Amino acid sequence: MKHKRILFVFSLLFGQLLAQDSLQIRRIYDEALLRGHAYENLRQLCKDIGPRLSGSAQAQMAVDWSYEKMLSYQFDQVNKQAITVPHWERGTTETAWYKSVGKYEATHKLHLLALGGSIGTNGLLEAEVIEFKTLTDLKNAKPKDVVGKIVFLNQPMDAAQIQTFKAYGACYAIRGNGAVEAAKLGAKAVVIRSLGLPIDEHPHTGSMHYEKDVPKIPAAALSTQDADALSIALKESKVRFYLEMDCREFPDANSYNVMAEIKGSLYPDQIITIGGHLDSWDTGEGAHDDGAGVIHCLEALRILHELDIKPKHTIRVVFFMNEENGNQGGQQYAKWCSANGEQQIAAMESDRGGFAPRGFGLDGPDQYLSILQSFEPQLRTYDLHIFEKGYGGVDIGPLKEQYPGIPLFGFVPDSQRYFDYHHAPSDVFESVNKRELELGAAAIASFVYLLDKKL
Amino acid sequence: MKHKRILFVFSLLFGQLLAQDSLQIRRIYDEALLRGHAYENLRQLCKDIGPRLSGSAQAQMAVDWSYEKMLSYQFDQVNKQAITVPHWERGTTETAWYKSVGKYEATHKLHLLALGGSIGTNGLLEAEVIEFKTLTDLKNAKPKDVVGKIVFLNQPMDAAQIQTFKAYGACYAIRGNGAVEAAKLGAKAVVIRSLGLPIDEHPHTGSMHYEKDVPKIPAAALSTQDADALSIALKESKVRFYLEMDCREFPDANSYNVMAEIKGSLYPDQIITIGGHLDSWDTGEGAHDDGAGVIHCLEALRILHELDIKPKHTIRVVFFMNEENGNQGGQQYAKWCSANGEQQIAAMESDRGGFAPRGFGLDGPDQYLSILQSFEPQLRTYDLHIFEKGYGGVDIGPLKEQYPGIPLFGFVPDSQRYFDYHHAPSDVFESVNKRELELGAAAIASFVYLLDKKL
Repeated sequence: MKHKRILFVFSLLFGQLLAQDSLQIRRIYDEALLRGHAYENLRQLCKDIGPRLSGSAQAQMAVDWSYEKMLSYQFDQVNKQAITVPHWERGTTETAWYKSVGKYEATHKLHLLALGGSIGTNGLLEAEVIEFKTLTDLKNAKPKDVVGKIVFLNQPMDAAQIQTFKAYGACYAIRGNGAVEAAKLGAKAVVIRSLGLPIDEHPHTGSMHYEKDVPKIPAAALSTQDADALSIALKESKVRFYLEMDCREFPDANSYNVMAEIKGSLYPDQIITIGGHLDSWDTGEGAHDDGAGVIHCLEALRILHELDIKPKHTIRVVFFMNEENGNQGGQQYAKWCSANGEQQIAAMESDRGGFAPRGFGLDGPDQYLSILQSFEPQLRTYDLHIFEKGYGGVDIGPLKEQYPGIPLFGFVPDSQRYFDYHHAPSDVFESVNKRELELGAAAIASFVYLLDKKL
Repeated sequence: MKHKRILFVFSLLFGQLLAQDSLQIRRIYDEALLRGHAYENLRQLCKDIGPRLSGSAQAQMAVDWSYEKMLSYQFDQVNKQAITVPHWERGTTETAWYKSVGKYEATHKLHLLALGGSIGTNGLLEAEVIEFKTLTDLKNAKPKDVVGKIVFLNQPMDAAQIQTFKAYGACYAIRGNGAVEAAKLGAKAVVIRSLGLPIDEHPHTGSMHYEKDVPKIPAAALSTQDADALSIALKESKVRFYLEMDCREFPDANSYNVMAEIKGSLYPDQIITIGGHLDSWDTGEGAHDDGAGVIHCLEALRILHELDIKPKHTIRVVFFMNEENGNQGGQQYAKWCSANGEQQIAAMESDRGGFAPRGFGLDGPDQYLSILQSFEPQLRTYDLHIFEKGYGGVDIGPLKEQYPGIPLFGFVPDSQRYFDYHHAPSDVFESVNKRELELGAAAIASFVYLLDKKL
């Protein structure tokens, strides 16, 4: 009987706690949806600054803008962490066309972007094209068939994949390793089909790499529409391809991670890091990738601060620099935290765009899965349903090495439209929906609120 | 021991059945995403025909297009059901502006649409404006404050509502009943704030009604941007409002529901109806509302047919006419089914746009909820997570009267962007994402496949 009474009192208290959480989360969503700053902040980042590749003037403008913005919110602390980043520039010439060898030899102008890190062509490069569907096909080719040619890697992302990131992952190698494998066989350059799902005119850039002792050759991406057209042309006759790009690598540049925090009321030395990356590719405006992610996290911190919600642990927002072509921001942040003797207890990243939220994934020890899943009853009414093992993020990834066992969480928005825009000129402010962005910020603020209470 | 063996064999068989379903659903998604017709069909409906209000030439073009398209797919049966529909036309003049009474009296041109069913102004109508936030405020007003004026109902949709349809429902009355309530107090006309979530320049039309013995007055909707501007102007001074519209009602017109079916292999007389509405408002292209819905259902039937999946029950797709301003298609269909002695055993409607699928809602007896929920394990991997009590649809609604106890299901896509486009000039083909549309068709085909097996 006594036990029953205790149980009753206990479940009453528990019920009240749940109700209190539910009220706080409702306040968070109201702030995001009715008085939110996310959309206007993203507009400023995209329209007043624009694309912001590491080492560029715009990247520095973005650092300054972020720092000033964080200061304006009067958080407990705002910092810049000096780091060193690669510095590559697209240059001013970037043009390509092909001619089918035969009666008419009409010129077909192409929508093309140099891949990030590529060398230039040093004037006009002209060669015959040879097409491969996959990197494996290229690796199995005979050098005599490839030497002196431009290799065209035409592997489409698999539209049948429901999780678009899986389709992306499956094609990643043609972009990352295409130049090395083509060069090994004596190719003059490599041109890939853009890693994008729609058939349209937008080329998608992204990182690639070279290897020691393998000649460096230029690498670029064609729009999916142009890739289809080129493939058809190649079935009909030989094709001469013309490419000119003056992109190049500069010495490493100085840059910054930018961060702000609310000090923990109980455990100020224990830090939960949330963030995204401030840099973007140099085409479009980096709106979904990853303007949305940094704005999500900034807005989440602003909301907690505005609502006077006092977290037990320190919540730190980090705008990482250089995720796109080096991940120096993430790597140097993790080392810096460790060198400073900081206790990093969890991290969350938003780097999958500003779409309608679906939930959160966990990259970390199993005991954190039940914590994540315990959020579901509170967040289900906000249309969140993914609470499972998954991926954290590139920027927070290096924390694992410095803090073994740290749980990393990844914000999971709907992924269906992400590869319409990713690394393409179409990734502009207008491609982000206001409500979807705001719901993302509210989901992240609610997640941080719940996580802080559970840890 | 014997029991254990039977249980083992049974669970093996059950596992195989589940595996078979899972393979079929994978085939359905592959067909939709890799060889789908949905996007091209929606393009034809939106771009070759355009908006298609009941009684218009475009509505008839849409009927003909649908009939020919269904014939081209060689379903077991294709039919048109003759019905009678209201016929209202917007006319060619639709213009409004206001002037603040005072020093400058500048002209502010407005983005405005007559509400569907409104009478015209019979020349230029000019009057002072009085603003109310809600219909209740209007009802509580004194006739002397309203008589001879234009009533401005400025109730914003509540952005804090996560389910946007709830926010819409809460404002519905200002559109549906504004004219009646304003006329009772002697107003000359009513102008409402558009039922849309974003603050932008697009007015949103929609149905309204008049009542016997209450004078008919013109009714129109302002864009949310203009509503905000007008409200600010009214705080500063008196405002003269100028309105001219030559919209009007015509005698009822002849039209059709268009339908196609695959005959059931075991129970051909038992019919599962799936559909959406072919008509749309006369602005934009009716892309999300409800081009997406009819195309979803047509594509679902095409996929089942193409994959040679033989349903036990007859699956009938219906393109209903006149959902927007009368629901004659839905009402006459239900009566026609009943009069023909048909056995309607379930129905599903898609009328919430072509966005990323979230799941299905049930309007019907509880025993069908467990059937719906039993689909979850198969559909979870396709990012579907809503399997709960909910709403069926306007067009299939009248089946309830003829077939008490019939389960009605509603397809639930993500609702966050729906009220950016609903009944507005922005509801065009370009606002529909190809993958999101295709995923909707695949979700519906899979749902029908599973439902047919369970009933």
